[in-house]
Amino acid sequence: MLKPAKYAELYLDYAAGTPVAPEILEAMLPYFGNEYHNPSSMHAGGRKAHRVLDEARAAIAGMINAESDEIIFTGSGTESANLAIIGAARAAKAKGNHVIISSVEHKAVLEAAKSLTKEGFEVTCLPVDRYGMIDPGTLISHLRDETILVSVIYANNEIGTVVPIQELSAKIADACINRKRPVFHTDACQAISYLDVDVRALGVDLMTFNSAKVGGPTGVAALYKRRDVRLSPLMYGGEQEQLLRPGTEALPLLKGFAHALKIARSLRAKEVDRLLELRQYFIHELENRIPGLIVNGHPTAVLPNVVHVTIPGIEGEAMLLMLDEHGIAVSTGSACSAFDLRPSHVLSAIGQESDLIHGSIRFSFGRDTDKEKLEYVLHVFPAIVARLRSISSVTTHAYEKQPR
Amino acid sequence: MLKPAKYAELYLDYAAGTPVAPEILEAMLPYFGNEYHNPSSMHAGGRKAHRVLDEARAAIAGMINAESDEIIFTGSGTESANLAIIGAARAAKAKGNHVIISSVEHKAVLEAAKSLTKEGFEVTCLPVDRYGMIDPGTLISHLRDETILVSVIYANNEIGTVVPIQELSAKIADACINRKRPVFHTDACQAISYLDVDVRALGVDLMTFNSAKVGGPTGVAALYKRRDVRLSPLMYGGEQEQLLRPGTEALPLLKGFAHALKIARSLRAKEVDRLLELRQYFIHELENRIPGLIVNGHPTAVLPNVVHVTIPGIEGEAMLLMLDEHGIAVSTGSACSAFDLRPSHVLSAIGQESDLIHGSIRFSFGRDTDKEKLEYVLHVFPAIVARLRSISSVTTHAYEKQPR
Repeated sequence: MLKPAKYAELYLDYAAGTPVAPEILEAMLPYFGNEYHNPSSMHAGGRKAHRVLDEARAAIAGMINAESDEIIFTGSGTESANLAIIGAARAAKAKGNHVIISSVEHKAVLEAAKSLTKEGFEVTCLPVDRYGMIDPGTLISHLRDETILVSVIYANNEIGTVVPIQELSAKIADACINRKRPVFHTDACQAISYLDVDVRALGVDLMTFNSAKVGGPTGVAALYKRRDVRLSPLMYGGEQEQLLRPGTEALPLLKGFAHALKIARSLRAKEVDRLLELRQYFIHELENRIPGLIVNGHPTAVLPNVVHVTIPGIEGEAMLLMLDEHGIAVSTGSACSAFDLRPSHVLSAIGQESDLIHGSIRFSFGRDTDKEKLEYVLHVFPAIVARLRSISSVTTHAYEKQPR
Repeated sequence: MLKPAKYAELYLDYAAGTPVAPEILEAMLPYFGNEYHNPSSMHAGGRKAHRVLDEARAAIAGMINAESDEIIFTGSGTESANLAIIGAARAAKAKGNHVIISSVEHKAVLEAAKSLTKEGFEVTCLPVDRYGMIDPGTLISHLRDETILVSVIYANNEIGTVVPIQELSAKIADACINRKRPVFHTDACQAISYLDVDVRALGVDLMTFNSAKVGGPTGVAALYKRRDVRLSPLMYGGEQEQLLRPGTEALPLLKGFAHALKIARSLRAKEVDRLLELRQYFIHELENRIPGLIVNGHPTAVLPNVVHVTIPGIEGEAMLLMLDEHGIAVSTGSACSAFDLRPSHVLSAIGQESDLIHGSIRFSFGRDTDKEKLEYVLHVFPAIVARLRSISSVTTHAYEKQPR
């Protein structure tokens, strides 16, 4: 019934990880070899390594309208988010014990905040609407005198919904005219390739972003920290990163991160337009070809590269594995929880019913995604859905006959 | 007076960082490019990445006689040490609040332990003798019923002294026949290329070691954790590394780490013999050519690749910079504190007097170090010392006339 795989791999899982392009790898290579020196060493090689580190830091700071001393390098997006959440909460403990996060945060923020409850903090999880959107009024209504930290994900890593961070920060500032403003953190890991990330314009105090999600190597990330925000470190040792993240800096990775981010930001406008058009076409055709298909995420405020759909009556894992047999790589949601069989907390938060919640697939596009590849998916995927429906224990008849 | 630099760079700072050899880089490259998948992804690429991760973990476990599930990958030696110290202490807090470390630990252990005092722990810093050696009897005498953690560095990163870890663990076990044994951690970052690191034979519960110090890439490290030792994580998020270190695994780095460690361990016996011979020759010639020179570290229980000397009356920084002008890269001690002008805590711990403590240089050898290169250093360094002595404000006359 189905044609064999046309592609050795048609990768549509860019939100889980991106390859390091040859030109980025090229920029990294010298720092593994002749230029491998420890930036903390005092000899010529060490001093040169320190200059390279400074340059990468300044370049990255410039791309988000920050100063060099506002960039803290870490080992992963998870670490940046933990340093933001746990670090800011512990540092402000004398001022209050209340933390607000959204219910659709990445697990790094969610679990870090959850860990704070064991240290005497109270954590409010903001509800979202069916699109995964936060209502600014609801956020403001939960602010208390003791609220020291608010964290909201900029663009959701599962369903792609984009939250108006600038509006939220402005409303928080307005609401806090007569009291101390809480520290405002946003997780911009998925946002940074496609959205405005000027930290001054956004009005954020802390922003997490990482290398692996912008086409750079895994193993390095950054935390933007507005100069006068105080953090407690998660670990201790040498004097690197203003004592907030000790350990020898991984120069080749930092070089790759800076280079990849530069390319991603320079291609941004063009890629947003191109991917939005592809996304619109792909969704339109999926809806035409798959009766009953539900597209998740906000209809307009959404990442251009994420298409998250639910197919009633079918298991997401089954679709994933059959797509995989045809060379198409996707995920059911966040890779970080791929083998966790509990329903996605994001889909629970948007109120997806329990008979639908296991039937989701996330297609995420990247620089190599083009119409021809999507045509292949549009050819293969509806047939997979039809086949799974025919063998499904759930009655799927209703969907097939459903008028459009 | 001095010849110009013969070498563009004669690197004798291997203890601060090692280049990634071409064959190791070669092993890493595929995982930046085509094989870049997230090991948590469920599709074929993700499953393959997970197998590569499993293989790297099994290979590394095998090299220290551990099981795969006893290896926790982290982002740096500093992170491994922090996870060991802070993680083990927090997890055992209900059992006791006393921690013992040596006074010559790396800053990662020292500062992590110091941070525990803010959480209600009491930390005992064991004294060492003038060679940096720990007396087992002294350690045992500090054990209490409330002692939950002991941490001793295997081979000192500044002066190279090697501590008999196996003897210490056996004596701790003997002393704890009628009570709960504390968790025993050793920092083996400098030791692992040259010493026995069979964790069962050593009798350790936790062992820190990293990639950058064995010729692998910076940005990845491991913590050996005996299966039934409990740790609290430093950060939270996805389910990687048994929930002890969340975040996407950096596959190319892990592959490079495993490959570099394999090479280092396979060359170990040969390199130990070769470097010990070079070390002996180098020290003998330095003593002959530089009156008053003091060799630090234990006379026999010492790393084969570290030569740490004190030259009375001269600043270490001045020697370092003049050596640097001749193309010779060394350090004054730990790179992690190179720009910290306070005296080294290791030299303070071995009782070095304050007029000597600033006059130290660490030469650390590696695979490319050979007799010819050392001959050049032996030619250049005594002349630098003589020149610095001639312009020094300290009276150096006494050293020059000193009988040998």
